[in-house]
Amino acid sequence: MPLPADLLDAFRSVVGAEYVRTDDASRESYGVDALKRGHPADAVVSPDGAEQVSAIMRLCATHGVPLVPRGGGTGYTGGAVPTRGGVVLSLERMNRILELDEENLVVVVEPHVITGHLQDTVEKVGLFYPPDPASLRTSVIGGNVAECAGGPRAFKYGTTKQFVLGLQAVLPNGDIIETGGKVVKNVVGYDLTHLLVGSEGTLAVITRIILRLVPKPPVQSTLRATFATIAQAVQAVSNVIKARVVPAAVELIDGDCLEAVAAYLNVRSLAPAGTGALLLLEVDGLAEAVTEEAARCERACRDAGATEILRARDDAERQEIWRVRRELSPALKTITPLKFNHDVVVPKGRIPQLFDLVGRIKREYRLRIPCFGHAGDGNIHVNIMVTPGDDDETRRAHEAERVLFEGVLALEGSISGEHGIGFAKAKYLPLELDPQTIALMKRVKAAFDPDGILNPGKIFPN
Amino acid sequence: MPLPADLLDAFRSVVGAEYVRTDDASRESYGVDALKRGHPADAVVSPDGAEQVSAIMRLCATHGVPLVPRGGGTGYTGGAVPTRGGVVLSLERMNRILELDEENLVVVVEPHVITGHLQDTVEKVGLFYPPDPASLRTSVIGGNVAECAGGPRAFKYGTTKQFVLGLQAVLPNGDIIETGGKVVKNVVGYDLTHLLVGSEGTLAVITRIILRLVPKPPVQSTLRATFATIAQAVQAVSNVIKARVVPAAVELIDGDCLEAVAAYLNVRSLAPAGTGALLLLEVDGLAEAVTEEAARCERACRDAGATEILRARDDAERQEIWRVRRELSPALKTITPLKFNHDVVVPKGRIPQLFDLVGRIKREYRLRIPCFGHAGDGNIHVNIMVTPGDDDETRRAHEAERVLFEGVLALEGSISGEHGIGFAKAKYLPLELDPQTIALMKRVKAAFDPDGILNPGKIFPN
Repeated sequence: MPLPADLLDAFRSVVGAEYVRTDDASRESYGVDALKRGHPADAVVSPDGAEQVSAIMRLCATHGVPLVPRGGGTGYTGGAVPTRGGVVLSLERMNRILELDEENLVVVVEPHVITGHLQDTVEKVGLFYPPDPASLRTSVIGGNVAECAGGPRAFKYGTTKQFVLGLQAVLPNGDIIETGGKVVKNVVGYDLTHLLVGSEGTLAVITRIILRLVPKPPVQSTLRATFATIAQAVQAVSNVIKARVVPAAVELIDGDCLEAVAAYLNVRSLAPAGTGALLLLEVDGLAEAVTEEAARCERACRDAGATEILRARDDAERQEIWRVRRELSPALKTITPLKFNHDVVVPKGRIPQLFDLVGRIKREYRLRIPCFGHAGDGNIHVNIMVTPGDDDETRRAHEAERVLFEGVLALEGSISGEHGIGFAKAKYLPLELDPQTIALMKRVKAAFDPDGILNPGKIFPN
Repeated sequence: MPLPADLLDAFRSVVGAEYVRTDDASRESYGVDALKRGHPADAVVSPDGAEQVSAIMRLCATHGVPLVPRGGGTGYTGGAVPTRGGVVLSLERMNRILELDEENLVVVVEPHVITGHLQDTVEKVGLFYPPDPASLRTSVIGGNVAECAGGPRAFKYGTTKQFVLGLQAVLPNGDIIETGGKVVKNVVGYDLTHLLVGSEGTLAVITRIILRLVPKPPVQSTLRATFATIAQAVQAVSNVIKARVVPAAVELIDGDCLEAVAAYLNVRSLAPAGTGALLLLEVDGLAEAVTEEAARCERACRDAGATEILRARDDAERQEIWRVRRELSPALKTITPLKFNHDVVVPKGRIPQLFDLVGRIKREYRLRIPCFGHAGDGNIHVNIMVTPGDDDETRRAHEAERVLFEGVLALEGSISGEHGIGFAKAKYLPLELDPQTIALMKRVKAAFDPDGILNPGKIFPN
């Protein structure tokens, strides 16, 4: 539905004519994200600064036009899709690192700084921003904050949430608020900062972010271990924790994934015959501690029955070990281009039960479901592979995802550890949250956005 | 104001007659906390379990009677004081550790578990709950969560917030909600868990808490260093951070505090003559790393001009070094029994400016203001000493606290890093937060508590 000409003119007078796009190509391309199920925007507006965001927001509120904030568009649950049309507010011009305060271990950034670029910048001065979503070369920090992005290093360092100290944000009524600040401790009023983290762009548009940094660990040690079964690999992780080591990464890759990567790389095999699970462990810190911790990890794997253990002797070998993990995503695409990519999470000790559940689902629904993920925190990516156009398989896949979610919740887990709800999982929200909690969340939403202008149709089932 | 007899009877039928107290002694003693400025409760009710909390809450809501949740009563800002009378809901019966899950590094507790007892319990199995408010032997975990308690170890490990994974809580309408869960990653819906942490009992009554644990660091190394000036001590902390060490404690004690402790312990001096600042540094972790990190800390202090450096060779010496820190609170009481105890926080690098500010305030308002605190995160306890009954000094102290807060905010700090707002600091909230943000927080409060039944008169200025 085209927006009124006077509204478009008003947008142009705020941001400049070249930053208001209504051509079909823009409306389409900004209407889709990594979920690949989109809806065209009515207009794409690119503001520069909180004042412009505020002005656009006020205009949308006055005209009852939905506004959907957009970062890198790398989300897997459709959080940036304008499902009801309206304005996509692309923050692409707000991409500056405003301040790097080495003394206070703080960096202040605009939302559209690419996460990997931020990491490179702070690492040049010996500092470290740990959260490392797989999308870090294309996703932006504002999107990471809006979704509370995770990644392999979350087990040791925590997710995005643990690094956000303060925000500037624009409310649906146009108010510009500042939450938190540059100090690590702050207990003045309610913690709006962490309410906004992970709120998927439904409460406010984030226009500035203050992040905590830590010293960059000087040394890493990386090892891979192969096991006949998932249960043995998880036992190895339990042994690592019993040995009181907290690795920076504990990645688990199942046999189906290994086969896919081997096929993709055109090699016969990446692991000994009969490998059901590969574990990738990385410890970091001072050299003195890393040597000891790596030895403990190796022992933990051996005690759990590892069939082979390789420890990287240099950075080239480290990159080689990580390669399998990095090639997973393109490799799975060669099986079939479409997957229902779920990021369920269970208490770590219950990962074997989760894989048992996936095994049953595979057999019962006749589906290919390669799995990999972050074994340290129980966050497993369950990829239900679907052949485009195969309606029967698609139906079975949808049934399977509900069975998966119900099983995960029975294991005291959660249906999403990293990707959020967006609109793709909104109908499943009541599986995890009781009606009272959902009602409370809707009242919180109304406290921010009484008219439902901001990113409507997300999180809550219709 | 006595509550209606039928309401008291209804309370008795919910929790049992012996757990509804209306005698004067109970009403008075449960009407005061560590702030020492109280107001008597109309009744003290002690429920056991969320269902009972819910029933009492519904009764209060129906009758328009304020309800004030109470943990250990150790808060410094009057958060547990029933300033408008009503029911004090003492959670003292809900003091069980429900589940210690070593495999998943999680503990599930009721709110009235004493924090120190929780720590002892998990340390017996080699695990660690880091947050260590000074009150840990008398404060309870529910209060720690409601206030987001800090402590020395917050610099390395984070405050209470970083360890709360999930909550069960009762809303003012009686709804029992569950937020978060046992998994570290969870991005399903809004993060109500961390909105409740630090909400000072104004949004919901917390009835169960799921906490994350970490492996207990096997080794500590503790050192104290003395400096002629605060600026040198802060330079030492900067050097430590430049050396990329994150100590588990970085405590700073000023010359006035040292004198008070020396007088209290009846010794001539605790440090070389002319000491303006004492730094207490502790690093923890694997033995291999701790040795290296302690050496770096020592070098950092030496480079900053330390006059004396002592490193504990055994646990007895470690306790001796910590003794000065531990005796601070009783020692300051011997100067005068009353203090306006502030917990301001500034970006670490600005601590010298904070002490310059305190120096000016001391001279201008003729006050004794010994300071100590957590130098790593810039959280300094500024103790404005007041002689009870000296009205002129009290007036000057109140003027001084406003000047202090304004100065801290000018340094990009916060007026409270640990103690919260309660009613003692409510009038200062608008110094730190703009009207839009306060209005938003009030809308959030209304989303939880539309009738203002729960802990009224706190956080927001009247």
